[in-house]
Amino acid sequence: MPYPSILIVNDDSIFSDGIRALWEAMSEIGDTTVVAPKSEHSGAGHAITISRPLQSEKINLEYGLSGFAVNGTPADSVKFAISVLMDKKPDILVSGINPGSNVGQSILYSGTVSAAREGTFRGIKSIAISIDGQNNIDYSLSKTISKNIVQNALKNGLPSDTLLNVTVPNIPKEEMKGFKITKQGSMYFSDNFEKIENGRGLENYWLTADHNDPDLSKDNDSIAVKEGYVSVTPLHSEQTNFRFIKELTKWGLN
Amino acid sequence: MPYPSILIVNDDSIFSDGIRALWEAMSEIGDTTVVAPKSEHSGAGHAITISRPLQSEKINLEYGLSGFAVNGTPADSVKFAISVLMDKKPDILVSGINPGSNVGQSILYSGTVSAAREGTFRGIKSIAISIDGQNNIDYSLSKTISKNIVQNALKNGLPSDTLLNVTVPNIPKEEMKGFKITKQGSMYFSDNFEKIENGRGLENYWLTADHNDPDLSKDNDSIAVKEGYVSVTPLHSEQTNFRFIKELTKWGLN
Repeated sequence: MPYPSILIVNDDSIFSDGIRALWEAMSEIGDTTVVAPKSEHSGAGHAITISRPLQSEKINLEYGLSGFAVNGTPADSVKFAISVLMDKKPDILVSGINPGSNVGQSILYSGTVSAAREGTFRGIKSIAISIDGQNNIDYSLSKTISKNIVQNALKNGLPSDTLLNVTVPNIPKEEMKGFKITKQGSMYFSDNFEKIENGRGLENYWLTADHNDPDLSKDNDSIAVKEGYVSVTPLHSEQTNFRFIKELTKWGLN
Repeated sequence: MPYPSILIVNDDSIFSDGIRALWEAMSEIGDTTVVAPKSEHSGAGHAITISRPLQSEKINLEYGLSGFAVNGTPADSVKFAISVLMDKKPDILVSGINPGSNVGQSILYSGTVSAAREGTFRGIKSIAISIDGQNNIDYSLSKTISKNIVQNALKNGLPSDTLLNVTVPNIPKEEMKGFKITKQGSMYFSDNFEKIENGRGLENYWLTADHNDPDLSKDNDSIAVKEGYVSVTPLHSEQTNFRFIKELTKWGLN
C-alpha cells in the first residue's frame, strides 16, 4: 500500500497541538482526512450523541491543516467521517496525539481510545496514540512512532476487533529505550472533589484525582512508559469475565 | 446482611420510569440512596466531566422518591454520590432499569453499564439492569429479577473488577424461561445518518442505526433474551487482547 488513506481524529478538538503533530506526521506517509470534535472532549469515553442531530464545519487552519469539525464527541466524529464525509472507508484510523497517557483505568475514560474503538466497530484498522505528559510536550518522538506503528499495522494487519493503544514517553528520541508490547495496566484513580463556591454561594465540586499504580510488572502499560519504552497494547471490546462464569453458574439463579 | 445500603443510579435521569421501578424494588430489600443525572444521558458511555464543576440538587418526587440530581453523566453521578453525598460506601450499586437492552456492542455505548463499571472502580459490587424493549414496558418482571440478583450478589460476592450486566426480556413473569449466564454477544450497529434541514437551510445529520446479530449462539446475551431468558453477563474492564500479543511481538517493532 504505497499511499494509504488515513483518517485522523482526536478528543482534544481540531484546534489542538496534538492533532497538528499527528497530521504533520501522517501527511508524510499518506493521504489524510481530519475529522475531529469542534470543542475539547477529554474524558468523553465512548459517548455518542443521539438526542440531537450533528453538524460539521470545514476548518482551514493557518499552518496548513484542512479538516472538518463536528459538534459532537470523538466517537461521533468517527461515525460522521465514515458515514457522511468520506466517499470510501479509510485504510487506517489514527486517534491523537493525546497529551496525557491513556493507560490502565484511563483507557475506559479516554475519548482518544474510544475514537479508535469506534474505528474498529466500523471495520477499520485503528490506532490510539498518547504521550505521557501534560506540559512541555515534545511531539518529535511521538511523530516518528506514529509513522512507524501505522506503517507496521498496514503491512501486518490487525484483528478486526482490536485496536493498538500506543503510549509514548515524553522524552527525546535518543533516550527512548525501545518498544514494549504491554497489557492494560493497574493504574487507577482515587477521586477527590474540590469544593468551590460560585458568586451566588452555590456549592460546586470540581473533580480531581490521584493516580495509583499498585502493580509494577514490566509488561504493564504505565510501567513500560515510565521506564522509557513506547508501550503498545492490543485492546479489544470483549469484556466478558470468562473466568467468573463458572463461579456464577454455581449461584443457581432461578 | 439483613438491610443493605443500596446506591441507585441510571442514565435516563432521576425523572425516568425505569429508576422509579428500580427504587420501588430496592426499597423492599434495602436502604436506598438515589443519585442520577438531571437530564437524559443515553449513549453517554463512560464519559466524565472534567472541564467544569458539578452541582447536585435534592429532588422529591410526588410518588415518594427522594434523591439527588447531578448535572453530569452517569459515571459522574456515581463519583459524586460516593465522594460527596454519602458518608459511607454503599454495600451495592444498581444501575437502571434501562429501557433498551445493553448487549453486544451497545455495552460500550451504554451509560447504564458505565455507571456500574464506575461502581467497580470505586470498590463497590455493581449491577446494571436493562429491559429488552423501548415501548409498552412492563417493569414487573425486571423488578423481581433486580431483587433476586442484588440479594444473590450480596450473598455470594463479586470479583472486585467485575459487574453483572443483567438484561430482562419484556414479557410477563409467567413467560420467562429462567436465567442464562451469557457472554458479551455479537450484536453490532450499522450506522445511518438521516439528513434533515433546519429552518436556516443548514445540513443536520441525525444518527440512527440498524441492529445486526451474526452469531446466534445460545450463550450470547442478546440471543438468550430473545428466547425468553434473563441474561446475566459478568463484565470486567480488562480489554487486553492477550491472544494477539504473541502475533504483535513478531512484528519486530524497533
